[in-house]
Amino acid sequence: MRYARVLVGGHPVWGRVGQRNVELLSGSPLGGADTHVIGTVPCEGAHWLPPVVPPVFYAVGLNYPRHISHAGAATPERPEVGYRANNALTGHLSPIVRPAEVTGRFEAEPELVAVIGRTLRHATRDQAREGIFGWTIGNDVSARTWQHQDRTFWRSKNSDTFKPMGPWIETEVDALAQTTTLRVNGEVRAEFATGDMVFDPFDHIAALTRYVTMHPGDVLWMGAESTCQLEPGDTVDVEIGGIGVLSNPVRLEEERGNQS
Amino acid sequence: MRYARVLVGGHPVWGRVGQRNVELLSGSPLGGADTHVIGTVPCEGAHWLPPVVPPVFYAVGLNYPRHISHAGAATPERPEVGYRANNALTGHLSPIVRPAEVTGRFEAEPELVAVIGRTLRHATRDQAREGIFGWTIGNDVSARTWQHQDRTFWRSKNSDTFKPMGPWIETEVDALAQTTTLRVNGEVRAEFATGDMVFDPFDHIAALTRYVTMHPGDVLWMGAESTCQLEPGDTVDVEIGGIGVLSNPVRLEEERGNQS
Repeated sequence: MRYARVLVGGHPVWGRVGQRNVELLSGSPLGGADTHVIGTVPCEGAHWLPPVVPPVFYAVGLNYPRHISHAGAATPERPEVGYRANNALTGHLSPIVRPAEVTGRFEAEPELVAVIGRTLRHATRDQAREGIFGWTIGNDVSARTWQHQDRTFWRSKNSDTFKPMGPWIETEVDALAQTTTLRVNGEVRAEFATGDMVFDPFDHIAALTRYVTMHPGDVLWMGAESTCQLEPGDTVDVEIGGIGVLSNPVRLEEERGNQS
Repeated sequence: MRYARVLVGGHPVWGRVGQRNVELLSGSPLGGADTHVIGTVPCEGAHWLPPVVPPVFYAVGLNYPRHISHAGAATPERPEVGYRANNALTGHLSPIVRPAEVTGRFEAEPELVAVIGRTLRHATRDQAREGIFGWTIGNDVSARTWQHQDRTFWRSKNSDTFKPMGPWIETEVDALAQTTTLRVNGEVRAEFATGDMVFDPFDHIAALTRYVTMHPGDVLWMGAESTCQLEPGDTVDVEIGGIGVLSNPVRLEEERGNQS
């Protein structure tokens, strides 16, 4: 099943995504509450929102062997995690806006995202597996000059629109057996085995929940093997087999004149 | 006015805090919606929740000159910010639970917290000031061995219960003109001028909102000048004049036996 959130009459509404239409639901399918169908909208022209706004937005850093050796970094000895911020989320087909002041490399990072469906604490790997509601796609857009210059990732990775997520949550896919493909303007820029991770999502959830409670709607972004440069005017697609394609145009922020 | 959230019949309910009673409200006072009184509970025995669960949980690191010189760090040249995680939040009078595996220093950090009340982007200092709904108190509990050992602050500062916040949001206080006092078992362990910051909340909001949109309910923790050690069995109080006292007992996590 594919679950999405779409904007209808100015309000976010959950929906079940079919071939042609989105069946609108009376509530969230997360957490196991009963929902019923309250209407439909066509997929074509739908306003896709990030499929969930997480209580906690977890993001794994170095997690693909080739990325780690490329970065000249040491392989992590245990699962660890950082955070991203909800202000940066944007949906499928919405623009990634590059701030006017960004200089240097401005890059896409194609990532698998696990969406948590149960309250988890001291989870085993099996409980972690059962606790995942479904899978979506993220693009961890990063401004490298800020990433190196600042003490934290606050603006390098969390400026508005830097975290496209979607288009929907797929609940019935063997996500780790898929291929991740990164395309810019239709041209393949990276392709890698989605599951070729140092620590997989179940390892991370088992390690994290020794200390933290994970809740329905939390998301865990799993890192990227490869990145590529984005320019204003580009369209960037992240595809993960069995889930879908997350596509976003890239725009340059409009200058604000001489305001402070 | 003092606004809190309390647990009533298993549900979080907003309330207006008086001398003896909490007047329960029909909805959140954040974002400007109309609310009406739907009941009262006595302050005595109330189950205080974190006064808000933020969409984004911002936390300033080094921000007090004495803390910076004590840490041997360089004074920040511009406002920057990190993140904390909502799973770690706990309310006034609820226990701080020290995980069984924590070794080394386990410390309290008493902090002023700004609660955002408006949607802010490209805010001036004056707009930032007007955009703050009110002020509360935070205790940025930290396990120092993990803080130094891990790549991020995930478990050192974000294990469950490591972020007490409350007891309520005070909307009518000159927060930066107050004194912050840290007490353990009634004994003063630190006392400093709340407003003696390198960059104040308005500086931070103006700088942040060049790149990020802040939303009603977002919180901005402002850092601490001093810290002190906590032991299981202690009670730690953070008082900020004109706001109140955030008090939490410290407990040791129960051993879980030989589970993985």
